[in-house]
Amino acid sequence: MNEEALVENIQNLLKEKKYSELKDILQDMNPADISALFNELPKDRIPLLFRLLPKVLAAEVFVEMESDSQEMLIKGFSDNELKEVLDELYLDDAVDIVEEMPANVVKRIISNTDDTTRKMINEILKYPEDSAGSIMTIEYVSLRPNQTAEEAIKRIRRTGIDKETIYTCYVTDDNRVLIGALSIKDLLLADEDAIVKDLMDTNLVFAHTLEDQEAVANKFNKYDLLAIPVVDDENRLVGIVTFDDAIDVMQDEATEDIKKMAAIIPNDKTYFKTNVFETWKARIPWLLLLMVSATFTGMIITSYESALSKYIVLSSYIPMLMDTGGNSGSQASVTVIRALSLDEVEFSDIFKVIWKEARVAILCGLTLAVCNFAKLLLIDGIKVELAATVCMTLVLVVFFAKIIGCSLPILAKKIGFDPAVMASPFITTIVDAISLLVYFKIATIVLHI
Amino acid sequence: MNEEALVENIQNLLKEKKYSELKDILQDMNPADISALFNELPKDRIPLLFRLLPKVLAAEVFVEMESDSQEMLIKGFSDNELKEVLDELYLDDAVDIVEEMPANVVKRIISNTDDTTRKMINEILKYPEDSAGSIMTIEYVSLRPNQTAEEAIKRIRRTGIDKETIYTCYVTDDNRVLIGALSIKDLLLADEDAIVKDLMDTNLVFAHTLEDQEAVANKFNKYDLLAIPVVDDENRLVGIVTFDDAIDVMQDEATEDIKKMAAIIPNDKTYFKTNVFETWKARIPWLLLLMVSATFTGMIITSYESALSKYIVLSSYIPMLMDTGGNSGSQASVTVIRALSLDEVEFSDIFKVIWKEARVAILCGLTLAVCNFAKLLLIDGIKVELAATVCMTLVLVVFFAKIIGCSLPILAKKIGFDPAVMASPFITTIVDAISLLVYFKIATIVLHI
Repeated sequence: MNEEALVENIQNLLKEKKYSELKDILQDMNPADISALFNELPKDRIPLLFRLLPKVLAAEVFVEMESDSQEMLIKGFSDNELKEVLDELYLDDAVDIVEEMPANVVKRIISNTDDTTRKMINEILKYPEDSAGSIMTIEYVSLRPNQTAEEAIKRIRRTGIDKETIYTCYVTDDNRVLIGALSIKDLLLADEDAIVKDLMDTNLVFAHTLEDQEAVANKFNKYDLLAIPVVDDENRLVGIVTFDDAIDVMQDEATEDIKKMAAIIPNDKTYFKTNVFETWKARIPWLLLLMVSATFTGMIITSYESALSKYIVLSSYIPMLMDTGGNSGSQASVTVIRALSLDEVEFSDIFKVIWKEARVAILCGLTLAVCNFAKLLLIDGIKVELAATVCMTLVLVVFFAKIIGCSLPILAKKIGFDPAVMASPFITTIVDAISLLVYFKIATIVLHI
Repeated sequence: MNEEALVENIQNLLKEKKYSELKDILQDMNPADISALFNELPKDRIPLLFRLLPKVLAAEVFVEMESDSQEMLIKGFSDNELKEVLDELYLDDAVDIVEEMPANVVKRIISNTDDTTRKMINEILKYPEDSAGSIMTIEYVSLRPNQTAEEAIKRIRRTGIDKETIYTCYVTDDNRVLIGALSIKDLLLADEDAIVKDLMDTNLVFAHTLEDQEAVANKFNKYDLLAIPVVDDENRLVGIVTFDDAIDVMQDEATEDIKKMAAIIPNDKTYFKTNVFETWKARIPWLLLLMVSATFTGMIITSYESALSKYIVLSSYIPMLMDTGGNSGSQASVTVIRALSLDEVEFSDIFKVIWKEARVAILCGLTLAVCNFAKLLLIDGIKVELAATVCMTLVLVVFFAKIIGCSLPILAKKIGFDPAVMASPFITTIVDAISLLVYFKIATIVLHI
């Protein structure tokens, strides 16, 4: 059944008050699909449908919902209902929800959780946004080094139900210091009498609570992990980040980079969840800034007005030179920005990068110049001096564009700026100005104007 | 110890032939880190170091290595060594390696695997590139519906060692048709006598062998899965895709989109692995194409040469109008392209998207026009008619840019083109031409030229 037919079906059943049929349909669906379905239905039907869901599924659906729907539901919940949902949530999901809610809703949530959970939520809320601490959960399985495999499995069976993942277990000493990890696969495939400390892997990949979430996500990718333990300054285990959160981080960071590269201030919402005014607010600052900086380009043209009026045909090659420069520069900058994000390039590589881009630039510039020279003479039929002016400019523009494009993002990262902001629009503005200066300089020399 | 110190240390130990110390250092390292270390060392040292690794670790390192290093190692291996490494590889990794190797190396690999593996490798190689079938592994745990939890766990303990993941197990009927899934967590936490078919989840998320890998990766993200079963036309289970492969696909697809958006033909290699000539080849086609298309913009200017020569100041606002148009258009196109990649926007949403972008465009256009009008009058001190010409053009340019920017990627996807190619450079070229046409049209009317 496709989505539209499903929505219609649900609406009909709602109208006819066939609640038990609705219940049957819903409880066979995936949480993510139910949440998507809720988005398609009138808002006032959601509480009714939500109450038809079995307890565990209800909590899973709740986590998947948009924060405005969550808020509406919480406001309609009795204290008892709220408690029931909260009890079923994993701690990191509860924290995510708390972070999105207005203060009065947060107050109600906090007053309906037990003391331990409240303390834990507050603990996680303390960590800075986008840090490993802020995305971790503290519901992990911890084992002691001297347990046998059998005892460990028993412990997991007894306590595992509330843990977000039981697949990687962490071994800590008496001071809660992380000393090893082992997977449940290792435990299950080991001898029953084998000792945890002999089975465990001591060569651990871990994150610090304050580490940037993007760096943590890159570790998942590099080491193919299901979960990463998070430790504090004393190497004590305080939580774990699971792969599903890492996947979210990766997708969000890629989206964020892409938006910044296109001169948009990123936010966390999906396309249709961002309203027109918010979209305007995300886009207008850079447009304004770039408009103002493009004025400099205009000023350069103005200052060569007399040269231009003598050789008006010069102006018809300005767009081509500017666009080619912009495109060349953004090719270099975008490639380098992505490589920086994926930890393929570091600051110490800057000269290696520049050397590479310089050679690529010369190859590209010459190819473009040769093709363009032929075209200018054969198709446009302009004078050789003029064609030479345009093509020499082309080579230089591509060269400058690539060098600036590749080095600015690396320098930006070094001084703590976001490299993604140094992408095409920003580079384009700089390259435009340089292109024109070079163009007019060469023109005045070659054409004697 | 940082990377440089480690490399130096290893090289010293190599020089002094302290192989047992080297062995101790290497066997405590992560496969990904060893592979990174190999990249920093002279190529001829790798085979020696590789032979110091314990068998299982050696295979894990081998998988992480760049394909040129893999090729070199295989060429140096004795048949026996090759067999040992191949025996330790998971099937999907073996297939990845086979796909990257030249024909003679493939022949040697194939002749050193047993019949079953050879058959399985060939099976997977049959699937088209970028399909679910091409990234799946066939080493999964399958259970029968009538087993008890205890029997199932025993089966996993007996056969699990060769499986890529034991965390999600799949239940198939007598015809190998997929009928359910259950996690090892469910099994461990269930009663020993519980029957698999009562425990299993029948509401499955699965992929078809021919499904695009990006769609499969999006399912991991949406449903927070560790693995997705892959079925054929008869719903028979033929393999699984695990989350680590999905993460790779997500990162690769994001990188690919980013490169295409910057007018680069994407390849699979990292920045430094792509040599200068390859980089040139990836960048020059679009630069040439865009240079040629920018010629049209030049032709528009040429055709208004007489107007321009009368009002030479008009030309100083061309860069600002073109850049603002380009930036506005790429904001819209890049946002929509990313939303298409993440399945947030579909073809049926096209009018909703256009309606939204139209309103955003009007807000942005007016804001820019008002700011610019003030600046033109107060700072540049130009005539009101001229300022009005520039600002009216601005509003229209932003409007056209956003509408074209948001709709082209959706239309491209509909007709089977890659939406990412419709990003900034392409849009910029179209918007440039439109900007100039609008500008000169308005100028001739308002300024009576």
